[in-house]
Amino acid sequence: MRMEDMILISVDDHIVEPPNMFDGHVPDKYKDLAPKSVRKEQPDGSVIDVWVYEDSEIPNIGLNAVAGRPPEEYNFNPTAYTDCRPGTYDVAERVKDMDRNGVLASVCFPSFPQFCGQLFSRSQDLDVGYVMLQAYNDWHIDTWCGSQPGRFIPLSLPPIWDPELMAKEVRRVAAKGCYNVTFSEDPSKLGWPSLHSEHWDPFYKACIDEGMQICLHIGSSSTMIELNDAPIDTMITLTPMNSFQAAANLIWSPTLKRFPDLKFALSEGGIGWLPYFLERIDYVYERHRFWTGQQFGDMLPSAKAREVFSFCFIDDKAGVLERDLIGIDNISWECDYPHSYSSWSTSPEALWKHFDGIKISDEEINKITHLNAMNRFHFDPFAIRPREESTVAALRSRVTD
Amino acid sequence: MRMEDMILISVDDHIVEPPNMFDGHVPDKYKDLAPKSVRKEQPDGSVIDVWVYEDSEIPNIGLNAVAGRPPEEYNFNPTAYTDCRPGTYDVAERVKDMDRNGVLASVCFPSFPQFCGQLFSRSQDLDVGYVMLQAYNDWHIDTWCGSQPGRFIPLSLPPIWDPELMAKEVRRVAAKGCYNVTFSEDPSKLGWPSLHSEHWDPFYKACIDEGMQICLHIGSSSTMIELNDAPIDTMITLTPMNSFQAAANLIWSPTLKRFPDLKFALSEGGIGWLPYFLERIDYVYERHRFWTGQQFGDMLPSAKAREVFSFCFIDDKAGVLERDLIGIDNISWECDYPHSYSSWSTSPEALWKHFDGIKISDEEINKITHLNAMNRFHFDPFAIRPREESTVAALRSRVTD
Repeated sequence: MRMEDMILISVDDHIVEPPNMFDGHVPDKYKDLAPKSVRKEQPDGSVIDVWVYEDSEIPNIGLNAVAGRPPEEYNFNPTAYTDCRPGTYDVAERVKDMDRNGVLASVCFPSFPQFCGQLFSRSQDLDVGYVMLQAYNDWHIDTWCGSQPGRFIPLSLPPIWDPELMAKEVRRVAAKGCYNVTFSEDPSKLGWPSLHSEHWDPFYKACIDEGMQICLHIGSSSTMIELNDAPIDTMITLTPMNSFQAAANLIWSPTLKRFPDLKFALSEGGIGWLPYFLERIDYVYERHRFWTGQQFGDMLPSAKAREVFSFCFIDDKAGVLERDLIGIDNISWECDYPHSYSSWSTSPEALWKHFDGIKISDEEINKITHLNAMNRFHFDPFAIRPREESTVAALRSRVTD
Repeated sequence: MRMEDMILISVDDHIVEPPNMFDGHVPDKYKDLAPKSVRKEQPDGSVIDVWVYEDSEIPNIGLNAVAGRPPEEYNFNPTAYTDCRPGTYDVAERVKDMDRNGVLASVCFPSFPQFCGQLFSRSQDLDVGYVMLQAYNDWHIDTWCGSQPGRFIPLSLPPIWDPELMAKEVRRVAAKGCYNVTFSEDPSKLGWPSLHSEHWDPFYKACIDEGMQICLHIGSSSTMIELNDAPIDTMITLTPMNSFQAAANLIWSPTLKRFPDLKFALSEGGIGWLPYFLERIDYVYERHRFWTGQQFGDMLPSAKAREVFSFCFIDDKAGVLERDLIGIDNISWECDYPHSYSSWSTSPEALWKHFDGIKISDEEINKITHLNAMNRFHFDPFAIRPREESTVAALRSRVTD
C-alpha cells in the first residue's frame, strides 16, 4: 500500500457552526428564541462574530479554527467568520477541504454549544433549550451530514439536564440514522452526578438499545487538570490525560457492571499511553482486587477495556509502534480539522510517517484509517461511493482549484 | 546474561521507622519532644503501634508493609510492628531480605514523617521541628545507611517550611555523603508555593551546588487525582499520573530556565507512559511555542527531559519494550519493598520477565538494573564490594535460613 491508497475516516473534527444553522429547524413560535450569530466591533476596530443565546455570548476562538495557518499565527483571540477558512463553517467548502486532504469522511463535534450541549442546559426555560438542542441535532444530521451523503458520520447532542429526555433524544436521532452521541468525560465536573451514578441509567439503557456509541471528547468536563501556576504548555501537555482519567474511571465503574455492553469513544485522547494503561489496570486488578472487590469474571480488565473503548490519534508514533499492545481493532485516526493539532492539508503525509519504514500490514493500516471507524461509529461510506473512489489519491484528484 | 547475573539497585523502597530511631540523635534538651512509638490496644482487642509527635498520632498502614504476604491479605488497617516482617523496620533484617531478593542496594523513603517531612513542618515550634528533622536525617544516613556500607543510598528530608533552611540542610547532609533529597511533586498542594516559584530558589541553588538529586515520589503532594465517586481502583490506577503531571509541570517551568542543571527523580512514577509523554511535549512545542513563548534553544523538550529526569519502574513491560523511545540512560528499576507493588522475594524473576525473550543487550540490562542508579543517585557500591559478589546469585547464596 502507498500513502495515496489509504482511505481516511477522521473520527474527530470540529464544526464552526454557520450563522444560518437554525433557519428551518426551529418551529415558528420559538424562532425568536434561537441562538443568533451577531457581528460585533471590538474596541480596537476589528470585527468578530459571536453567538448570542439568552444572556450568553459565545465568541469563536481563533485557536479553534486555524486550519491552513502556520503555528506562528495561532492565538486565543476571538475571530470573525471572515478570518476563518470557509471550510470551517460551510459544509460544501468543508468537503472540498476534505478532498484536498484526502479525507473521505468525518465525525464533527460542536463548538458554541460545548461538547455535550451544556449551553442548552443553561436555558432559562428548559423546554426552549430542548427545542434548540433538537434543532441543532436536526441541522447536524439532516443539513450538515445529510447534504453530503457518505462524507459525515452523524453525532448528536444530549439534553444533559434530564436522563429521560436524553434517552428519548437518543431514540429519536437513532431513528434518523445517528448512532453516536457526545457526553462528558466527567459530568460531575459540570455539576451533574458522576459517570457511575444510576442517575444516567435511562440514557445508558437507550444507548444500548439503539447501538449508540458515547463519545467523550477531551475537555468535555469543561475542566483542565489543575496545577497551580502551571505554564499554559503544561495544561496543553496534560489534556489527553483527561482521557486516561476517564478510561480509568469507567473501567472500574459500577456503570459497566450494570451495562456491560456500553461502548465509548475517547475522542482526541491519543493512544501512546495505552500500552501503559492496559498493563496498569491488569496489574492493579491482580494485586488489589481481593480488598477492592472488583470482578471481571474470566476476563482481565484490559480485555474488557478493548471491548468498551475505541481510541484515536492525530500524531502518535509510539502508539502506532505499540499497536499490538493496544489492540489493532481499537485504534482509529483523527484529523482534528480545523483545530491547532490538525495537519490539514497534509494529513495523509503526516499519517503515512507513522507507517513508513515499520513492519505493518495493509490490513492493519486499513483498520486504523477507516475499518475500525466504520465499525465503531456505525457507518458505511461504501454504500454511497466505491472504495476505489474513496482513496486519498481519488479524493485529491477531484480538487480543481 | 542470565537472571542470576543481574546486579540490582532499587531506587525506591520504604522504611517503617523503628521505635528507637531517635535515640542518640536528639540533643538531651529536646529528648522529651522527639516522636515516640506507642503501643495501643484497639477496641477489638488487637494491638497496634503508632508514632506520637506533639498532637499527631500516625499509625502504620498495613498496605505499606505487606512484603511477603499474598495479595489476598492486603488491607488498609493499621498494624503493629509485630505484624510486619522485621525487614521493614530493622536494618540488619532488611539487608537479609535484600539478600533473599538478590538486591544489592536500595533508596529508602520515609513513612511516618511523610514523603517530604511534612510532619515536622507542622511542629508547634519549628526550631524543634528542625531538630527532629535533622535527627531523622542523621539516623537515616549514619545508622540506617551507615551501618550497612554499600547497601543503602542515603536520602534526606528537607525542612520544607523554610527554603534557606532547606539549603542549609542540603549542604549539611551533602557533607555527610548524602546526595539525594525528597521534595514534593507539587508543593502547592501542601500549602506552599508551586514548583515554579522563586520561593524555592535557595533550595534549588544548593541542590545544584552540591550535586543533589531531588526525588519526587508519587503521593508527595498528599493529593490523589480527584474524580468524584470514583472506585478506589480508579485512584490506584491513576497514581503514576502524578508523575506525568509533575514532569509536564517541570519541563515547561521557569524554574528549569533559572536552574537548567537541576536533576529530578520521578520515584514510583513508572515508565510505560514516557514514549507518549516525550513525543507529546515535542509536539506541543512545535505547534504552540510561538504563542506560549517557550524556548529550548537548539534542543527539543524531550532531550531536555532526558537531561533533567530519571525514571523508574517496578513492573512495566511496555516501557522496557519501548526503552529506545524513552532513553536507556534514564530508566532504573525499583523494588518498592515492603509496599504492595513489590514482588519481594521474587523480584529478580519478576524483573527478568521484562528482558526474557526480547532483544536487549547486557549493557542495556546493566544500565536499567544498576548503572543508571549509580550515576543518577551518586553511589558506588563497588567501592565496598566487588561486582562478582554483588549479583543476584552471589547475594542469594549468602542467605543461610
